[in-house]
Amino acid sequence: MTDLEQRVQTLAQEAKKASRALALASGEQRNQALRAVGQALRAQEAKILEANTQDLAAARTKGLSEAMVDRLRLDHSRLEAIAVACEDVAKLPDPVGEITEDWTRPNGLRIQKRRVPIGLIAIIFESRPNVTVDAAALCVKSGNGCVLRGGSEALHTNLALAEAFAEGLKKVGLPAKCVTLLPFTDRAAVPALGSLRGIVDLIVPRGGPSLIETVVNSAKVPVIKHDAGICHVYVHEKANLAQALPLIINAKCQRPSACNAAETVLVDQSIAATFLPQLGSALAQQHTQIRGCAQTCAILPQAQPATEQDYRTEHLGLILNIKVVAGLAEAVDHIETYGSHHSDAILTSDEAIAQAFLAQVDSACVYWNASTRFTDGGEFGFGAEVGISTDRLHARGPMGIRELTTWKFEITGQGQIRG
Amino acid sequence: MTDLEQRVQTLAQEAKKASRALALASGEQRNQALRAVGQALRAQEAKILEANTQDLAAARTKGLSEAMVDRLRLDHSRLEAIAVACEDVAKLPDPVGEITEDWTRPNGLRIQKRRVPIGLIAIIFESRPNVTVDAAALCVKSGNGCVLRGGSEALHTNLALAEAFAEGLKKVGLPAKCVTLLPFTDRAAVPALGSLRGIVDLIVPRGGPSLIETVVNSAKVPVIKHDAGICHVYVHEKANLAQALPLIINAKCQRPSACNAAETVLVDQSIAATFLPQLGSALAQQHTQIRGCAQTCAILPQAQPATEQDYRTEHLGLILNIKVVAGLAEAVDHIETYGSHHSDAILTSDEAIAQAFLAQVDSACVYWNASTRFTDGGEFGFGAEVGISTDRLHARGPMGIRELTTWKFEITGQGQIRG
Repeated sequence: MTDLEQRVQTLAQEAKKASRALALASGEQRNQALRAVGQALRAQEAKILEANTQDLAAARTKGLSEAMVDRLRLDHSRLEAIAVACEDVAKLPDPVGEITEDWTRPNGLRIQKRRVPIGLIAIIFESRPNVTVDAAALCVKSGNGCVLRGGSEALHTNLALAEAFAEGLKKVGLPAKCVTLLPFTDRAAVPALGSLRGIVDLIVPRGGPSLIETVVNSAKVPVIKHDAGICHVYVHEKANLAQALPLIINAKCQRPSACNAAETVLVDQSIAATFLPQLGSALAQQHTQIRGCAQTCAILPQAQPATEQDYRTEHLGLILNIKVVAGLAEAVDHIETYGSHHSDAILTSDEAIAQAFLAQVDSACVYWNASTRFTDGGEFGFGAEVGISTDRLHARGPMGIRELTTWKFEITGQGQIRG
Repeated sequence: MTDLEQRVQTLAQEAKKASRALALASGEQRNQALRAVGQALRAQEAKILEANTQDLAAARTKGLSEAMVDRLRLDHSRLEAIAVACEDVAKLPDPVGEITEDWTRPNGLRIQKRRVPIGLIAIIFESRPNVTVDAAALCVKSGNGCVLRGGSEALHTNLALAEAFAEGLKKVGLPAKCVTLLPFTDRAAVPALGSLRGIVDLIVPRGGPSLIETVVNSAKVPVIKHDAGICHVYVHEKANLAQALPLIINAKCQRPSACNAAETVLVDQSIAATFLPQLGSALAQQHTQIRGCAQTCAILPQAQPATEQDYRTEHLGLILNIKVVAGLAEAVDHIETYGSHHSDAILTSDEAIAQAFLAQVDSACVYWNASTRFTDGGEFGFGAEVGISTDRLHARGPMGIRELTTWKFEITGQGQIRG
């Protein structure tokens, strides 16, 4: 075991031990902690912004783009938003302790299935410092300890935020170590965390493909990943075309960097000649490039030919693939072949066709006459989200605090023995 | 990629493709398939028993114990039981397609959460040939394809059983490959299956510690393991002692090789002098050895001293650890330190103490006045079980066909776009 692995293990063991106290705390105490964290963040504003200034200066020296520097930047109002978000998590209903099933067996045994925290969750992220507080708040709300490993460019800011978090926990008598930020950002900390069977109960990577690969390939503990989305909108021949235009523009252009943004539009052959010119000019207004199949390129002169690779790419920008298909079967086949089973939509007024699409497309979220951009914990009404799971087990699609719980069976008898 | 890895990948890819047809088949068609499999098993009895004779002869030549040979052995009535079990699975309620939640957002979007099959499940097992049909039947019932890798000593029997299974699937027009038995049992097939991201959706190991270790350490796809149980019965000072004796004998002695059998009994100090002699003679009648703490050994002359390692051991036989504790806190502490979070029981007439135990012990199944032996899919009323999950995510404790499903969100709109 390397020195780094030893340090990671020690920190995780301490966090695990602290997490048990959190799991047994009342919902009210966990909410009090979150409100105290909000207060501590405000009280420590000067210190946090000073740490952030340090990170910003280092980022500029390293030559990070202005967009990246801006993502890193905190100021009074951004910090206030982080504090408010933390207090808002306190207002959500408590997922812990809920009895979701309750039955009695013929032999008189009563079995109750009760939601309980998962335990200790490792969260690996790269992005904005607000994720630090956000992720920790959702874990505390659901009674889970966490070990956080943020990006190197935000380390000072994250440490200052974590200090405020610890302050809030201590104020209500909870052990500060149940939220532990790793005070180093070595890449080797990722496999080190993922190898801690019996200590880390779940590892959640949020970030780019290389981070996800590192976690999935090295982890020996369960992973729920928040990976790329290659989402589709299929315009069936019976679609309301006036509705289709703003919907596709929303799905592609509103926030092209989001995982629920559309990458490919599939259009039924019978309406291609009518619809594609309308779509082409709507996309032109949005400065969105088109990569098209041969039929699309024949109709839209501005389209570049799409390669096989384009259909497998999360463009993360204003580029849209367009492909003309013969009908439902070819559309489903394309989505199943090239998609990422994230979010896919059909636009049609034909209910039978819509139901067939919803059944046949094997994705976490399947839409009938709505934008794929709704795949989001907030939009689903979950109050907050850990992310959008691209896995199939335990959490699939938007992942809220309920998916940060597991269950136990509590069985009450009167001395029953098994026959 | 080795030759073996290539062969495993090709077989799994074909099973995956076939599994999609199964996922989209109706519940009635999947049930018909299971009934047809029952018929095919009966029709092919001669062939199956002949293959079994081959395996039995090889097992005797290899010098396997008579107990092992007996586990391997099929005869008319055992095969009939396998066929009936398969038909019984057809009678269970269909878990696929059920809508478990249904809500409408303020913007008019209707969101339905629907149970769907997981996809392709790899099941690795070592034990009796009946597992082959059992595991495949549960997968087919829940709409999942499966790749099965059984033990080498049962290969001919398993191949003959798999052929009958294929027969049944084909008879109702389902692709036979959705149930694929690997026609080789090389150990290297296990990591090969576990590395198939995007093809194998879940890997389920059922077997001894070394198999579990191999799977967990090599898998890059999700694992739900069915591991050891180190289960406890805590006799609180307010326990009904007359009830406690048969209950402990049931928990320890009824089937000591089961994962839900008790390994350690914890006894409150205040009742040790009264209760331990009674327990000692009840255990003696069951030819059960005692490994005791110092206080236990002082009271029971037949007890051997328990080592630290005894408390961490799944004895799988008629050996019971006994430890005297000061009260609830020490009992919980012992269970949390040495247990495997499987099944643990408290015996007491004090409700507050019982509730504290149920909350503080972090195990899949926690019992108040009942035997740990009830941790079982059948005893819970699940109709059938894949096994008993010792993991915390997706399935925890007895795992039925419902835990072989995941879900998708079906969202219906009227052209909504995200603001």
